[in-house]
Amino acid sequence: MRISVETSVPYDAVVWENPTEADAADELSAVLRGKKVLAVSDSGVPRAALDFVTSALNRKGFEVFHYIFPAGEGSKTLATVSDIYAHLLKFGFNREDAVVAVGGGVVGDVAGFAAATWMRGIRYVQFPTTLLAAVDSSVGGKTGVDFGGGKNLVGAFCQPCLVLADTRLFSTLPERELLSGLGEIVKYGVLAGGNLWQTVRGLRVENGKVLSGGQPADMADLVARCVSIKAEVVKRDEKEGNIRKFLNFGHTFGHAAESLSHFTLAHGVCVMKGMIAVQKLSGGALVPELEAIAANLGVDPAIGFDMKELAAAVRADKKASGDGVTLVVAESAGRLRLEHLPFARLEQMTGTL
Amino acid sequence: MRISVETSVPYDAVVWENPTEADAADELSAVLRGKKVLAVSDSGVPRAALDFVTSALNRKGFEVFHYIFPAGEGSKTLATVSDIYAHLLKFGFNREDAVVAVGGGVVGDVAGFAAATWMRGIRYVQFPTTLLAAVDSSVGGKTGVDFGGGKNLVGAFCQPCLVLADTRLFSTLPERELLSGLGEIVKYGVLAGGNLWQTVRGLRVENGKVLSGGQPADMADLVARCVSIKAEVVKRDEKEGNIRKFLNFGHTFGHAAESLSHFTLAHGVCVMKGMIAVQKLSGGALVPELEAIAANLGVDPAIGFDMKELAAAVRADKKASGDGVTLVVAESAGRLRLEHLPFARLEQMTGTL
Repeated sequence: MRISVETSVPYDAVVWENPTEADAADELSAVLRGKKVLAVSDSGVPRAALDFVTSALNRKGFEVFHYIFPAGEGSKTLATVSDIYAHLLKFGFNREDAVVAVGGGVVGDVAGFAAATWMRGIRYVQFPTTLLAAVDSSVGGKTGVDFGGGKNLVGAFCQPCLVLADTRLFSTLPERELLSGLGEIVKYGVLAGGNLWQTVRGLRVENGKVLSGGQPADMADLVARCVSIKAEVVKRDEKEGNIRKFLNFGHTFGHAAESLSHFTLAHGVCVMKGMIAVQKLSGGALVPELEAIAANLGVDPAIGFDMKELAAAVRADKKASGDGVTLVVAESAGRLRLEHLPFARLEQMTGTL
Repeated sequence: MRISVETSVPYDAVVWENPTEADAADELSAVLRGKKVLAVSDSGVPRAALDFVTSALNRKGFEVFHYIFPAGEGSKTLATVSDIYAHLLKFGFNREDAVVAVGGGVVGDVAGFAAATWMRGIRYVQFPTTLLAAVDSSVGGKTGVDFGGGKNLVGAFCQPCLVLADTRLFSTLPERELLSGLGEIVKYGVLAGGNLWQTVRGLRVENGKVLSGGQPADMADLVARCVSIKAEVVKRDEKEGNIRKFLNFGHTFGHAAESLSHFTLAHGVCVMKGMIAVQKLSGGALVPELEAIAANLGVDPAIGFDMKELAAAVRADKKASGDGVTLVVAESAGRLRLEHLPFARLEQMTGTL
C-alpha cells in the first residue's frame, strides 16, 4: 500500500508485507541520487533487515556502508550523531549521497537528524523494523536526540524522501515491542473514530501474534490506515503549530511515565496509560473502553506514579511552554480537543491516576 | 533601511546607522515571543554591542542571559553548540523563547544552528557586528559548524526572524575585518553590475575608513544594497538549488585559500583573490578591473597557493559533488554563468593563479 505524504517536499510511505528485494531496489533507486549510502542501524535490529536493504541497494549500484550503534535510548545522543558525521566524512559522502535508517524509533531519529544536518541536509530513507516506528516516528520528519536528560530536546524537522515498511518484520518482535506499536495504533483509533476505533477495540495479542476480531490481523492494512492518518495531519501542519498536537494524545502523561520509569516501560504502553490518565483527569469519557482495550492487550491501565511525580516530569517536558501544557482530550472516539492545563492547577492535584 | 526577505517564513533585515535603543527594542519585541532570550556572542565582540542589545530587550521585559565563547573559527564546533544547549536547558528555555546572535559570522552560524535545532527550532535574531556578517552570513538562513577539519559540514537552513544591522559598529573594525566585508561587497558589485559595480570600483580604505569616490562611504546604503541582492537570490532559491550558487562567486578558490592559510587570511579577502583566480582560469574577463579594485583596497590579488594545493583543497570542500565542482564565472559585470569543472581537469592544471 502506498500513502503519499504531502509535506513541503512530498514523499511516499510504502507499506508492504514481505516485499521482494527487487521491489525494494526499485523504490529506493527511484528516490536516491549519488553513489553512496550509509545504512544506520543498532545492535537490536535483525541482521536480515540490514542485509535486505544492503542487497537491494547493491543491485542498483550503490556503494553501501554500515554504521551500527548499541541499541537503546542511551545511544540517542549528540555523541552518536557526531560519530555518524565522522563516518560520512571518512567515507567521503557529499550532498548527493544518502542515509538509510534501518531500525526502530531511536535509529530513525538519530540517523534522520544526522542526515538533516550533514552539509545542511542530505536525503534519507526510513526503513522501520518495529511496529512502533512504522506507525509513528518514521513518518512526519521529526528527527532528533535527547540532551541533558531531556527527551528529543535537540532536533530538526526534516522529511525523509521515502518510508519503506515491511510488516513481515513485526511478526518476530518481542511482545514488549509489539505492544509498544499497538499503543500508538490504539491512539489512531481514538483520533479517527469509526471503523478504526472498532478495529482497535477488537485487538488481542496471543503468543506474540496480533489478532483482530479473533483472526490474525492484516498488519499491512492496519499500519497503512494509521500512516494515512498521520500523513493527513502532518500535511496540514508540518511543524507542529496546532493540528499536529492532536497526535500527542496520551503523550503528556505517557512521556512523564516513560521518563519516570527510566525508559523501562515501552513508549506505546506508556501512551496507552497516558490516554487513560488524561481522560480520567478530564471528565472520564472513553475510560471504560480504553481500560478494556488495555485489558485485551494485557497492559496494566494504571499510570503507576503519583500526581506529584507526574507534575514534575510534565513540567520538564519540552512540550511544556510558558505557564502550562497543552493537553489533548477525547470527548468521544473521533472527536478531540486541545486544553490548556496551567502548571499551577496541575501541581495542586493529588492522588494517583 | 528595511529589506523584506521573502523566504518560506519571511522576515525583515533592518540596516541602520546608529539606531536608538528604543528603536531596536521595538523591532525586537515585534518578532520575539516568550520571556527569555539567550544573547550569544564571542570574546572579540565589543561589549557595547552586547550591552545595547541586552538593554533594548530589558526595556520590553525580556529576561536576558549571556553566553560568550572564545573568538575564532576554532570555536565553530559541535562542542560550542552543545554548550549553548546546556545553557538553554539550565535556564529553562522553551519553544517560545529565543536566541540573539550578537557578533560576526562565527557567532551567527553557531548561535543560529543551536537555535535551529533546540526543540527542533526556536526563533533567533541576527545582530551582525561585522561588515562581513552584515552583508553575507546574517541574511539567508545558512547556519552550521565545522567538523573534522571541514568548513560548515554540519548545519541547517533556518531563517532568522529578524536581522538588525547597526553600521556604526563597522567604523571601529580592524582593517582586516573591514577588508573582509569589502571583499563580499565587491562580489555583489560583480553580481549586480550597473551602479553597484561602478560604486565598488571606486572604493578605497584610508585610515580604517571606507571611501567611495573619495568621500566617506554611506555604509548603511552600501550594506542595504548588498542585502537586497542577497534577499532576492535567497527568495528565489532558499536551499541552494541552483540560483543561490551564484552567491558563491569567488568562493571555490577563496575557500580553498582560506583553508590552506589555516584561516589566517580573512574570508572576504580570500573571496577577492578567489574571484580573480576563477576569472583567470576561465578566459580572463574582468581580471584587470578586479585587480585594480584589489589594489585600491590594498589586497594582494595573487591567490598564493599552487594549483596542486588548491585542487586538493577544492576536492575536500563540501560544495564538491560527484566528479567535480560547480564554478561561478563572470562573463561581464552583471552577467554570470555556472560551469562544471571536473576534478580530472582541475588536477591536470599546473602553475599558480
